Amino acid sequence: MKIALAQLNYHIGNFTENSEKIISTINKAKKENADLVVFSELAISGYPPRDFLEFNDFIIQCNEAVNEIAKHCIGIAAIIGLPTFNPKEKGKPLYNSAAFLSDGKLVQLVHKTLLPNYDIFDEYRYFEPNSEFNCINYKGKTIALSICEDLWNVQDNPLYNINPMDELIGQKPDLMINIAASPYNYHQTKIRKEILKRNAKKYNLPLFYINHVGAQTELLFDGGSLVLNSESEIYDELKYFEEDFKVYDLKEIETKSVINKNQEFSEIESIYKALVMGVRNYFQKLGFKKAILGLSGGVDSAVTASIAAEALGSDNVYNVLLPSRFSSEHSVEDSLKLVKNYGMPYDVIEIEKAFSTFEDTLKPYFKGLPFNIAEENLQARTRGVLLMALSNKFGYILLNTSNKSEAAVGYGTLYGDMNGGLSVIGDVYKTQVFELAKFINTNKEMIPVNIITKPPSAELRPDQKDSDSLPDYDILDEVLYQYIEHRKGPKEIIAMGFEETLVNRILKLVNISEYKRYQTPPILRVSTKAFGMGRRMPIVAKYLS
Amino acid sequence: MKIALAQLNYHIGNFTENSEKIISTINKAKKENADLVVFSELAISGYPPRDFLEFNDFIIQCNEAVNEIAKHCIGIAAIIGLPTFNPKEKGKPLYNSAAFLSDGKLVQLVHKTLLPNYDIFDEYRYFEPNSEFNCINYKGKTIALSICEDLWNVQDNPLYNINPMDELIGQKPDLMINIAASPYNYHQTKIRKEILKRNAKKYNLPLFYINHVGAQTELLFDGGSLVLNSESEIYDELKYFEEDFKVYDLKEIETKSVINKNQEFSEIESIYKALVMGVRNYFQKLGFKKAILGLSGGVDSAVTASIAAEALGSDNVYNVLLPSRFSSEHSVEDSLKLVKNYGMPYDVIEIEKAFSTFEDTLKPYFKGLPFNIAEENLQARTRGVLLMALSNKFGYILLNTSNKSEAAVGYGTLYGDMNGGLSVIGDVYKTQVFELAKFINTNKEMIPVNIITKPPSAELRPDQKDSDSLPDYDILDEVLYQYIEHRKGPKEIIAMGFEETLVNRILKLVNISEYKRYQTPPILRVSTKAFGMGRRMPIVAKYLS
Repeated sequence: MKIALAQLNYHIGNFTENSEKIISTINKAKKENADLVVFSELAISGYPPRDFLEFNDFIIQCNEAVNEIAKHCIGIAAIIGLPTFNPKEKGKPLYNSAAFLSDGKLVQLVHKTLLPNYDIFDEYRYFEPNSEFNCINYKGKTIALSICEDLWNVQDNPLYNINPMDELIGQKPDLMINIAASPYNYHQTKIRKEILKRNAKKYNLPLFYINHVGAQTELLFDGGSLVLNSESEIYDELKYFEEDFKVYDLKEIETKSVINKNQEFSEIESIYKALVMGVRNYFQKLGFKKAILGLSGGVDSAVTASIAAEALGSDNVYNVLLPSRFSSEHSVEDSLKLVKNYGMPYDVIEIEKAFSTFEDTLKPYFKGLPFNIAEENLQARTRGVLLMALSNKFGYILLNTSNKSEAAVGYGTLYGDMNGGLSVIGDVYKTQVFELAKFINTNKEMIPVNIITKPPSAELRPDQKDSDSLPDYDILDEVLYQYIEHRKGPKEIIAMGFEETLVNRILKLVNISEYKRYQTPPILRVSTKAFGMGRRMPIVAKYLS
Repeated sequence: MKIALAQLNYHIGNFTENSEKIISTINKAKKENADLVVFSELAISGYPPRDFLEFNDFIIQCNEAVNEIAKHCIGIAAIIGLPTFNPKEKGKPLYNSAAFLSDGKLVQLVHKTLLPNYDIFDEYRYFEPNSEFNCINYKGKTIALSICEDLWNVQDNPLYNINPMDELIGQKPDLMINIAASPYNYHQTKIRKEILKRNAKKYNLPLFYINHVGAQTELLFDGGSLVLNSESEIYDELKYFEEDFKVYDLKEIETKSVINKNQEFSEIESIYKALVMGVRNYFQKLGFKKAILGLSGGVDSAVTASIAAEALGSDNVYNVLLPSRFSSEHSVEDSLKLVKNYGMPYDVIEIEKAFSTFEDTLKPYFKGLPFNIAEENLQARTRGVLLMALSNKFGYILLNTSNKSEAAVGYGTLYGDMNGGLSVIGDVYKTQVFELAKFINTNKEMIPVNIITKPPSAELRPDQKDSDSLPDYDILDEVLYQYIEHRKGPKEIIAMGFEETLVNRILKLVNISEYKRYQTPPILRVSTKAFGMGRRMPIVAKYLS
């Protein structure tokens, strides 16, 4: 049997475009003599459709689309993910299903059993877990079909009491197919391979694993679909961060030696590729071409501009330098070097007039109080207003340039430098931003080295440095990582050797800044715990704060 | 047996303050000869603690607090909600528990069985559902104790396959106690009473229902705890929107006629009270006293200012009038009348200089393009900057004044009039805002009637009216209500008699504005479907858009 893996990038709710893409891929697979073509989880709707799932109209459109697609499955079968109505009276109204299409119709539905409901996942909000287990019989082969998390209980995952493959194995399947929408983070690829190998080994079966690829707002799907033989070797893997398609002969997988050329990325390279895909898809899928951003002379905006140039093309990244009375000369010089290295369009707009007009306007109401955070924020907001005015005038999307360290401790101005349609590096700690900058410079100094080596500064008052108000980034980032990614409490972090006062101060800063993060743009997620949909905090609280 | 109901307002994560409040209430109940005092769901942590539940440190602190509280339960017992660790190897790491405290120690834990995971609820994210059912025996009585949603399957709720009371009834309980954290919406009180009556009737038992009260960021808990006799009559109800405490004699409940004086509120009165509580608690719990807001002369900011004045005291609401070259004379006059009616502090700050400086600064870069949305937004953002500067300088929280209708269709400026720490009326449709204004004027014209009667306008260009770009609010709000609250699709709404082009236009506006709502402040929730944590949408999508 010949099985095609179709690793595609879907657009949530865009039934016309998704269906066209799926149908043309079915035709391609047929031409290449595949017996079966496999698409990923919730391919028809795009993943995650979130609360669109609560609209009957949305589910009806999914079902209409699958029936239309089924008509094209003549002389070939397809497996494809979509939400379906739960026909029973009891339970949640939907299933997360895989449809088996053959002979021009929908022949069988398999539903997802293990529904992730942690971090960025909300599947139990919508779906009823499956409780009936049936393999698919096709061309003399018995296929154990499952959906993403369904294979995730192979290591006795405490979250689940059932293991769908244990239920299916009694039907003596010849192979396993798993359709997935497994979001990227920089630890995920390794874990995913490990879990899938364990499945192939435990059940002594070849495994076809097809993943989603592409960005869905903040979620980045890295693709890297896998074929494993029953020896639990990775026979082959599809591309990462781009669409791919390949046909495999089931017999050859079991008889030929592995053809896999392991696509090893360093952690920082994979983050870079993920972010580039994230920016590119955000613009493409929203129908925008051009980005605008404020270039400060610092490493965050330099890295953001570099990623945007790679994602959208240098011509499509409009850089605005917005120096103030507190900006150092090198800030403008370094930024100009950067835009010239990339050949990106730019303008230099002094904020002094607008800023001092605000100062004058506010003077009678500020009652002689000294220059403080209000004036610092005023500069950031003046910049924010200018950038948004240009964004509105020309229809460019403003890119936010905040990093995860400053987002964590609230070192940023709401409605100022926290503005933007998309946060590019908001899930990248400052120390990682420096690594990204160095990675970008691997072959050539695209980011002027002075941007990387000079001490970080917001330049909102004379001679300001980040280190005036924040701990060194290498310590800050380690403490933040333990608190945010590992959810360690203060006692545990202090026990790791960090200074008590410092730990308490950092955790307090994180917790009192929830109100700021509540209003930030969506952040491209590259870690196991990003700010946004996967980290849900009350604003009004008093814990470690 | 004498049972005290303690309807208290908790502060999430504030273990010291919550424990003190609980202990002093235990002592009070003891003084009043109660045998048992009952607190609400997750009282020790406050509800909802959200992802703080993922910190072991947080759960440990909850458990330390309950052990401390237990020491005070000598000569009296208490029932109190808290999260506890699941000691089993399998399942989610926590239970949502009710602790029975007696003789100075924690005697028994009862866990929640039915875990809501829809709308604003995420309980399945954290908690393992209970599967063991035991009543509590105390002073010769058998108590069927359950937690909130546990009584919600009395009408054969399709979401659940089990009914905890059906499991407990075999143990022949003498009474039911339900501890809850049931958030307010303007339909909820009626539904809640109906469900509880059905329980009392079905099991032929008296029922003590204790609810949370107070605001937790966007969630408003209305209190209104209930005592039902076994005839399923409401024997008594505690106050709405404030703390309350009362001791009941179990025998008297069954023998005496009901003492309940039904506290009937009109829908609009209950919304008003809920919003006042929401604003008050937001400030109190964050440790702030004073609010600032921009007063435009329109009904939204007038109603917001009125609610703030009631919540915080007139002296604590600083109103800023920010007229531009496009503001009508009546805007300033009407606003001045309003602030004088309340005796609120105010300033009038012309935005012309700052706005025209921005225009001048931007002129070389705008390339002669005509006045459009960019300049309109520029005015709103100039106002936003001035308000935030004053907010930062004096430590006042900016109140957002957007209503639900404009938030729905994206009729507002990000980083401009969409700014604020809290959205007061963001879950109130424009037609309801007018009703609120009239309600506020019930006894005296506090809001100048011209503010209510004049046609709504953003006043961002000459002679602008909302009706230039939006349908009439009575039609708009009905369509929005069907789409947002009832999740009806376009076909269903059109079938109700609304015009097809109009419906499609409105739904498209809603869906393409997700990116704006993503960055808005938390919105006090009064409806069954508010923007925010209970409505989770992808930004990058193409559905009805």
